[in-house]
Amino acid sequence: MAYTVAIVGATGAVGTQMIEQLERSTLPIAKLRLLSSSRSAGKTLQFKGKDIVVEETTESSFEGVDIALFSAGGSTSAKYAPYAVKAGAVVVDNTSHFRQNPNVPLVVPEVNAHALDDHKGIIACPNCSTIQMMVALEPVRQRWGLERIIVSTYQAVSGAGARAIEETKRELREAVVDGVNPKDLKADILPAGGDKKHYPIAFNALAQIDVFTDNDYTYEEMKMTNETKKIMEDDAIKVSATCVRIPVLSAHSESVYIETKVIAPIDQVKEAIASFPGAIVEDNPSQQIYPQAVNAVGKRETFVGRIRKDLDAPKGIHMWVVSDNLLKGAAWNSVQIAETLHERNLVHPTKDLKFPLE
Amino acid sequence: MAYTVAIVGATGAVGTQMIEQLERSTLPIAKLRLLSSSRSAGKTLQFKGKDIVVEETTESSFEGVDIALFSAGGSTSAKYAPYAVKAGAVVVDNTSHFRQNPNVPLVVPEVNAHALDDHKGIIACPNCSTIQMMVALEPVRQRWGLERIIVSTYQAVSGAGARAIEETKRELREAVVDGVNPKDLKADILPAGGDKKHYPIAFNALAQIDVFTDNDYTYEEMKMTNETKKIMEDDAIKVSATCVRIPVLSAHSESVYIETKVIAPIDQVKEAIASFPGAIVEDNPSQQIYPQAVNAVGKRETFVGRIRKDLDAPKGIHMWVVSDNLLKGAAWNSVQIAETLHERNLVHPTKDLKFPLE
Repeated sequence: MAYTVAIVGATGAVGTQMIEQLERSTLPIAKLRLLSSSRSAGKTLQFKGKDIVVEETTESSFEGVDIALFSAGGSTSAKYAPYAVKAGAVVVDNTSHFRQNPNVPLVVPEVNAHALDDHKGIIACPNCSTIQMMVALEPVRQRWGLERIIVSTYQAVSGAGARAIEETKRELREAVVDGVNPKDLKADILPAGGDKKHYPIAFNALAQIDVFTDNDYTYEEMKMTNETKKIMEDDAIKVSATCVRIPVLSAHSESVYIETKVIAPIDQVKEAIASFPGAIVEDNPSQQIYPQAVNAVGKRETFVGRIRKDLDAPKGIHMWVVSDNLLKGAAWNSVQIAETLHERNLVHPTKDLKFPLE
Repeated sequence: MAYTVAIVGATGAVGTQMIEQLERSTLPIAKLRLLSSSRSAGKTLQFKGKDIVVEETTESSFEGVDIALFSAGGSTSAKYAPYAVKAGAVVVDNTSHFRQNPNVPLVVPEVNAHALDDHKGIIACPNCSTIQMMVALEPVRQRWGLERIIVSTYQAVSGAGARAIEETKRELREAVVDGVNPKDLKADILPAGGDKKHYPIAFNALAQIDVFTDNDYTYEEMKMTNETKKIMEDDAIKVSATCVRIPVLSAHSESVYIETKVIAPIDQVKEAIASFPGAIVEDNPSQQIYPQAVNAVGKRETFVGRIRKDLDAPKGIHMWVVSDNLLKGAAWNSVQIAETLHERNLVHPTKDLKFPLE
């Protein structure tokens, strides 16, 4: 059996990475269909050396599709994912649209693949900043429990899409080569494409990712809170985040502070993380070894270092968590969900799909 | 009365800012002497429109000097500050060398100017990352008490000196213009000039500032812990830091989490910070107003925003603290100490200076 796979948003920053991850995937693929908005339709992209013409996404795009990977924004998922499910495809959605829907599993395969067993046609891929934190913390939670998380992020601009990458490069050229004062740089995209004001990212750190919610946290910050509780299946875990964009193109870094339920010996914490699938411990201060964004780019793993006891709280631990936001944070986690669905024989579930999803 | 002022390290990133801050200062200055290593001696710099030739620092450089501002590295302070004191000068030292000496006040004038009254010839200027956090937190501590601080920093490269600024610009040109893969960029300075390995900062976030101590925290992180306790005169305050260098030239940003001793209403916290000298609250999420590094450059104040309750801990508060690390973090705080010494008639104290300092 080989699948027909569709990528919705194939020309975007994540979509192009999905093509690459599918090329390296164990998933048996008979056919790949690339879908986009009308703006990008007609472009040609390559998959395993063959040209594929990008088609416009329509309600009838999903006939014959077994697996549809969505990464074209929440409104596109809201509009077209139900048609994909209706056509018999299983949807892996990389947007935030369905993540808190109780009928939609929110999955990081290393952490909660079991949640896929109950899927009803749509599976959500968590937010990039949440995924890498889950890979680092699940081995700690399993053994010592998790009481609370305080996280400050150092996020790459590619999380805001291909146009944000171009904007960052243009600003840096103007600042470094042309000598423009960074505060005078013109910005159109960051910090959030859909928000009113835009600020330069060159030589800056923007304490806003996505728009603000009513509680003075941003949506990005609330995603980290709410998604952590859903993935770890524990509403009692306390999570407060500060999400910050910095002038890095790819790979998010995170300063993560946790308190465990029982005291966790730091050597055992390192061992537990090192033996967890998808996690790599890079932690040797005397040799200046710790995770770095530039080294994580292009890798599927999550890198964890600077693991150390809080100076005062006996159950407090600090760590530095780095991963490629376009790969484990998006494209790879989505493809990995598809692989896991295949391995568990869940691409065409026998149970009735409930549609529409409420 | 007008003073003879000397700057040791006058040609460095902080030294040149000290000259500018002295030009804008209320301090009555009869003469400015610029001192440096033999490498930079002979250069000419301007002060209030007049040329001053930079002289090599020697044991006899301080004859006739009333106030000596040191910012040429810890070993230079260790070697020459005692000669300055012996010659009758009061030393304001911007390095870490004397900061934990019990005979040396560690001063942020808005916070603990009273500590100057007991000076014995040397006053230490705290580390840049500590100073701005103190300005933001002292008004909170005064009213509600401080139980603990967890801080993650986003620090500018200028904290590592003029050569780190040049290295960062060169790397960014090579990455953005020449298309060099950031992980292949050659680095000679960062993360710490005196350490064995050097890593690129372009498109990176380096979770190392200064070298590592035995407890797996860096010296920079331990400075934030130890200096906070000394400045706030309370060893019971719990402080754990993660200090990170990012590709920003000037102005440090900090994600600061605190727990107060008693519950602090968030509106009153904002008012308390806004009315504290040297602090400016920039905090209006609905208008996307929050402090930004690019806007803080060249300003003497510390900017505080994203002030909000922790989602779970009733005494927990998060905030985003930004200030120019070369100004309030170094040059301005040093000059401000000198101004305060003058205002309090402490430049030539009548009490005996204890020398050497132990």
